[in-house]
Amino acid sequence: MPINPSVDHYLELNMDDSIRELSKYCTQPSIAAQQLGTHECAQMTRGMLEKRGFTVEVFQTAGAPIVFAERKGRSDKTLLFYNHYDVQPPEPLELWESPPFSPTIRDGKLFARGVVDDKGHLTSRLFAIDAILDVDGELPCNVKFVVEGEEEISSVNLEHFVKTHQDLLHADACVWEYGGVDFNDRPVLGLGLRGICYVELRIKTANQDVHSGLGGSIFPNAAWRMVWALATLKGPDESIRIEGFHDDILPIPERSRELMARLPDPSDEYRNRYGLKGFIKGLSGGVDLLIEEVFTPTCTICGLSSGYQGEGSKTILPCEARAKLDFRLVPNMQPEKIIHLLRAHLDQNGFQDIDIIDLGSEAPAVTDPDDPFVKVVVEAAREVYDQPMQIVPLSGGSGPNAIFMKTLHLPIVSAGVSYPGAQIHAPNENMRLDLYLKGARHIARMLTVFGAV
Amino acid sequence: MPINPSVDHYLELNMDDSIRELSKYCTQPSIAAQQLGTHECAQMTRGMLEKRGFTVEVFQTAGAPIVFAERKGRSDKTLLFYNHYDVQPPEPLELWESPPFSPTIRDGKLFARGVVDDKGHLTSRLFAIDAILDVDGELPCNVKFVVEGEEEISSVNLEHFVKTHQDLLHADACVWEYGGVDFNDRPVLGLGLRGICYVELRIKTANQDVHSGLGGSIFPNAAWRMVWALATLKGPDESIRIEGFHDDILPIPERSRELMARLPDPSDEYRNRYGLKGFIKGLSGGVDLLIEEVFTPTCTICGLSSGYQGEGSKTILPCEARAKLDFRLVPNMQPEKIIHLLRAHLDQNGFQDIDIIDLGSEAPAVTDPDDPFVKVVVEAAREVYDQPMQIVPLSGGSGPNAIFMKTLHLPIVSAGVSYPGAQIHAPNENMRLDLYLKGARHIARMLTVFGAV
Repeated sequence: MPINPSVDHYLELNMDDSIRELSKYCTQPSIAAQQLGTHECAQMTRGMLEKRGFTVEVFQTAGAPIVFAERKGRSDKTLLFYNHYDVQPPEPLELWESPPFSPTIRDGKLFARGVVDDKGHLTSRLFAIDAILDVDGELPCNVKFVVEGEEEISSVNLEHFVKTHQDLLHADACVWEYGGVDFNDRPVLGLGLRGICYVELRIKTANQDVHSGLGGSIFPNAAWRMVWALATLKGPDESIRIEGFHDDILPIPERSRELMARLPDPSDEYRNRYGLKGFIKGLSGGVDLLIEEVFTPTCTICGLSSGYQGEGSKTILPCEARAKLDFRLVPNMQPEKIIHLLRAHLDQNGFQDIDIIDLGSEAPAVTDPDDPFVKVVVEAAREVYDQPMQIVPLSGGSGPNAIFMKTLHLPIVSAGVSYPGAQIHAPNENMRLDLYLKGARHIARMLTVFGAV
Repeated sequence: MPINPSVDHYLELNMDDSIRELSKYCTQPSIAAQQLGTHECAQMTRGMLEKRGFTVEVFQTAGAPIVFAERKGRSDKTLLFYNHYDVQPPEPLELWESPPFSPTIRDGKLFARGVVDDKGHLTSRLFAIDAILDVDGELPCNVKFVVEGEEEISSVNLEHFVKTHQDLLHADACVWEYGGVDFNDRPVLGLGLRGICYVELRIKTANQDVHSGLGGSIFPNAAWRMVWALATLKGPDESIRIEGFHDDILPIPERSRELMARLPDPSDEYRNRYGLKGFIKGLSGGVDLLIEEVFTPTCTICGLSSGYQGEGSKTILPCEARAKLDFRLVPNMQPEKIIHLLRAHLDQNGFQDIDIIDLGSEAPAVTDPDDPFVKVVVEAAREVYDQPMQIVPLSGGSGPNAIFMKTLHLPIVSAGVSYPGAQIHAPNENMRLDLYLKGARHIARMLTVFGAV
């Protein structure tokens, strides 16, 4: 069904206002990992939703608040949007071309920490709603928003909220926080996310650092013990060596392989964008690379820290070492079990002295590619983008989609305003303004089609 | 031979002035690793020596200047003092009870970065010279000082200076920069130092950090590659696995074992001071621990750095990793060869992508325990300390003693004002005032005995 052309007209005319609102939103730091500015950002989010006539409630949690909003529409159907107002830490600051919390437009892109992940997604949806309300005076369906503030630290307080507010959150379908185009500018519809289990390993071998001339031959060294422990987890052949780690993995569905085979080969794009000499595991590209990228669990060292890290030399034997580890889990793996297996592995290998700090986890979850809502979203994109949406059965990232799917029993799809150069989680995060407009047009159509079917 | 009692009297009367001079000296940061304040500190050193009537020359180098000073004495014999005015970086700052460059007296100790390592050693020697000059009007022998500013970064410019100034530096014996008492307050005479080879390993696998949801299964990870490379260098059994590493090591001399067997067991002291649960390699204490401590070469990780190290979680795959490594070398090992073997080892194990940055090295060197100068120093200590000096054939630390021994062909001994609680290289570095006075009394006697024999 065609959309009222006045909606597109409104969006084109009011881009500047929406970008101004987004810029203001990005000026507010909201770093969940550092508990910085999240309460302030929750209040900004409340104000932005109330401005559109939503009934808003801000739920306090043990961490950052969760913002819930609701507005009735013409039909009985309810669409739920999941977004988050928290952002990744901006470090390393010296690599930003403009300060991370001073949004700046360059070359048709808006640069700021969180501009794509995820503040621009929320405002593009509000922008679509503005257009529909301006043209029609009411929404085609009921719309709900859950905007949390701890997505970047594994949504540690969301599960309890969802489980205890099932009636409030009841909906027929859900649009996820992110999405966008691939490196050929072809729009992507994502159906699932890997799980995650993020831990910090810590060891302390003495009450202080020691002169390395003294202890090197006879004292335990925290850095060495961490290195040896890590080396038992994954070998140079990239195989994860934790006993039982792979036990629950399901075979890759034939339908998923079929969808993956239709996707373009990203290998040249990756090599160029990230300056890679090559890939690991002997991979070169094509569907093998695509499948390995998402259908394999990972054990990634995200950070390592011990002893002296300044310029030049300091001759100490460090008493402490820390490693941050991120396991991405494929369908049917359970994060709680992974932590249990990791503890058992460290103990069995003589590393009882290494503590595991659980920094949050999420289960993997996927939506059926043949769910009717998938067709709605693909249909809504048809006249916005030059190419049809491509369906990606599983993405490499993670999020709390399993919580919604298991509790609310609804299909969840990803569609949004991002692109491969968006530098998500990295310095110089940015959003293309042309995709922002397209994303808003897509959402406006999605609401219209969804309300009508 | 007894010393003029007026010398001791002078030292007791003038302690406050000397501590005031030392405090002022410690107020000047002089961090070689960060090239901070070294030129200023060289000029302070010059002024302090000129005040005692020394002829001083400040030699510029590619790094920190070297201060040379000379004053004639009664006999033809020349004693050379080697000291350094540079200090270790003070980090971690939050662990200091008083600021590192604001010298503070508490409980009979002076706290400051560099107070013992090595500024207090230099001023204690100047203090002894003050006393002798006050009482006798001249020195018992010729005295020379070499005070460099890069000891803490492996004396990278000293060798060239010593080799090109052999006549200037000519002396009959040398007193090294440090020394003091053991944990039983028994004075220690050190005869040798291990060598050192300090390197930084660096790897860069991409042009930026990548979202760990994207690259974890298919991109190289700099932190993992560093962990795997390090794990090939030394195993959990503490054995260093670099081929050829042990080839040049000499057997431990019987005379050294004999001297080591006379030393007290430090194991309880180490356990308590550093909060250790135990030692590595199954060691429990006694002469085995003492010999292992110094007669074994080490491969110590002094620092590890990669990716996100802040609070909480950040889901990135790091593009860079760094490790600082310190090899302590026992007699006859050559640092240049160790770097060569390390490069070959990394290449053979598939780590051609890891760069080695040479941050400085020094060869091991020892003085004969039966050299006549050793007797002079022991004799001079007799009426200062309650117990006789104990002779330590090899110490765990390093320094440029090999440069002096090989070029100038003189015996070198260590004797000074430190003690095991001095927190050298660590927060809250401190010097006991009682030992400072004893150290000055010892030096005054040493000059007197040395000039007379």
